[in-house]
This record gives sequence, structure tokens and C-alpha cells, in this order.
Amino acid sequence: MARTRGEERRADILRATLEVISERGYRGTSLGAVAERVGLTQQGLLHYFPTKEALLIAVLEVRDQWDTAGVPHTPETWNIELLATLVEYNAMRRGVVQTFSALLGESVADDHPARDFFTRRYVQTRESMAAALRAAFGEELAGGLTPEQAAPLLTAVMDGLQYQWLLDPEAVDMSAAFRDFLVLLKPKD
Amino acid sequence: MARTRGEERRADILRATLEVISERGYRGTSLGAVAERVGLTQQGLLHYFPTKEALLIAVLEVRDQWDTAGVPHTPETWNIELLATLVEYNAMRRGVVQTFSALLGESVADDHPARDFFTRRYVQTRESMAAALRAAFGEELAGGLTPEQAAPLLTAVMDGLQYQWLLDPEAVDMSAAFRDFLVLLKPKD
Repeated sequence: MARTRGEERRADILRATLEVISERGYRGTSLGAVAERVGLTQQGLLHYFPTKEALLIAVLEVRDQWDTAGVPHTPETWNIELLATLVEYNAMRRGVVQTFSALLGESVADDHPARDFFTRRYVQTRESMAAALRAAFGEELAGGLTPEQAAPLLTAVMDGLQYQWLLDPEAVDMSAAFRDFLVLLKPKD
Repeated sequence: MARTRGEERRADILRATLEVISERGYRGTSLGAVAERVGLTQQGLLHYFPTKEALLIAVLEVRDQWDTAGVPHTPETWNIELLATLVEYNAMRRGVVQTFSALLGESVADDHPARDFFTRRYVQTRESMAAALRAAFGEELAGGLTPEQAAPLLTAVMDGLQYQWLLDPEAVDMSAAFRDFLVLLKPKD
């Protein structure tokens, strides 16, 4: 089914918002700057997204869809190989990773509008990671860790490597480092 | 030696700046807001720090000193136990970790004034981590990894756990998770 003009305009606005956020952070992003980038008046933009926060939430939701656009899955079908593929895929789309990392950084402030989104998202992420680790390696991972103990580490490695890679892409091979970590987690015979 | 009044005033300004950054991010921080918090006019503040960027750099440098205020070391004496102690210490000072994480998040933008600082800092951090891992575990860590392969992972785990802990301190025990990771890295007999 073809997208309506309104849907296309919404998609254009979300793309422009991602660009502006990756350049200026969410706090530095104004509705005026997004409107200008997409060729709308600020009044015209407000027709699609009535507040800056509404725009942020829409961006975060669409990002989670893009995240998996090249890597189809449901939470139940997450697996370790898919995670490694996602890291490889991320290494090819710097802008999206930059936006996500900038938003995560801002969201830890007590009053940030994305804080609840990220807090809920990480609860789900740790659960999905634990399930993927259990499916791949069973109940006992290397070092005697349980999947639940390893899940926050796996999540931390993915996020932390993104910052190092964004700052210094030639020094840090995000994808190779992630595979090294999977080797570490694998139970030894 | 007693600190002069000027030194005390500078210290007050840096503390106020950290507070404002942790609430609003660096981009959302204005010289006016810092001046107000510390009870100076904006003109008075400019006497100590002529630009907002000068203030940011001073904050980043003093943070690295505070980082180790409770944990004395030189880069040569980093060791694995000291790192675990630093993570425990961080779990007791949320504001400082919040400011650091917010600044790291912003710094990945291509034009951010702290980008070079963090890029250089991570080169040094990975080197120090590799040296600490070599001293603790020798040339071959668990999974056959070299200290240089494990160093970006160790760095990523520390940073990534901070975000999860800041968002959800009751769900994530940063210090226990970091010790789990050290168990993973230890070579098996």
C-alpha cells in the first residue's frame, strides 16, 4: 500500500529530527531548526507533532524499528548471531548510532523526557539478552555466570563500544571487539 | 598551604558547573545559570573563565582528579583491584557519574568541544587497561584474548554499566556486575 502524503511528510520530519539531534543533542534541538531542515514553517511542523517531546518519542520509537530493519526479529527470536550482525550493521550507519548514543547520554538526567523510555527499554533489553544467552550457551556461561548475570555486561559492551567507536573509528573495531566478547562468554568444555 | 580566595572561588564555580551540567547537559548549560548558582554576576564569572568552553575543559580536568581522589594512583599503578574499587566508589557519587555520562554522550557529535578530550582520554584509558590486565593475568586472558583485545571491552563495560545503573539503580548492581566481568577475563587453568 502506498504511503499517503501525510505519512511521507511525517517520515521526512523524523529523518530531519534525527539529523538535528545527532548534531546538537536533544536539548539543543529546536522545533524551528527541524522545521527549517524539512522546509516547513514551525506552525506547519506543529500540525504533525504538537510538542518537542512528542517528536522525541516518535523518533525513539521509529529508531527501534530501523534498528531491526535489516535484521528481522521478534524479541523471542533474538539470538547471539543476530546481535553480532546488528553490531556489524551499526558500524555502517554512524548517524543513527550517534543519535542514539547522544540521547542515551542526555537521558540519565533526572528530568529528561526520554528517561522513562530508556529505563523501560533496558529492562526489556536485559531480559532479551538473558534469553538469547540461555538459548546459545545454556544455564552456565564461562566463569560460572548465569545468563542473568551476563545480560547487563553484554548490553554494556554494546553501548560502551559504540562510544569508543564514534570517538575513534580507526582505533576501535566495534564488530571484532563484540565477537571477542562472545568468545569470552562461551562456556569452556 | 591554604587556598587563596580566588582558588576557593574557582572551586565553587567548578562545583556549580558540574551541578548545572548534570541537570541540563553541557549544551543546555549557560554561563548565566552557573553565575547565578554560585552567586556571581556573569561579568564576575567571566573574570575566572573567559568562555563556556574554558569552563568545560576545566571541569573535565578536575573530574579526572576527583576520579582518583579516593583512589590514589598514577597511570603506571593502575591495577585490576583499583578498578573494582573505583567502580564501587562511583556507585556512591551519582552526580559525578551523571555529569561524566552526559558529557560523554554529547561529545560524540562531530563538532562538540569535548570530543578531542574524550578521544585522547580513551586512547590513554585503553592503554592503561591493557597494562593492568597484563599485570594481573599475563599475555593470554580467558578465551585466548590478548590484553589489547580485552582493554576496549573492559572500558566499554565500565561506561555501559554506568548508563544502566544511572537509569535504574535498583535493577543494576554496577559493582557486582563489574566483578563478574573480571571473573570472565581471568585465564582458566
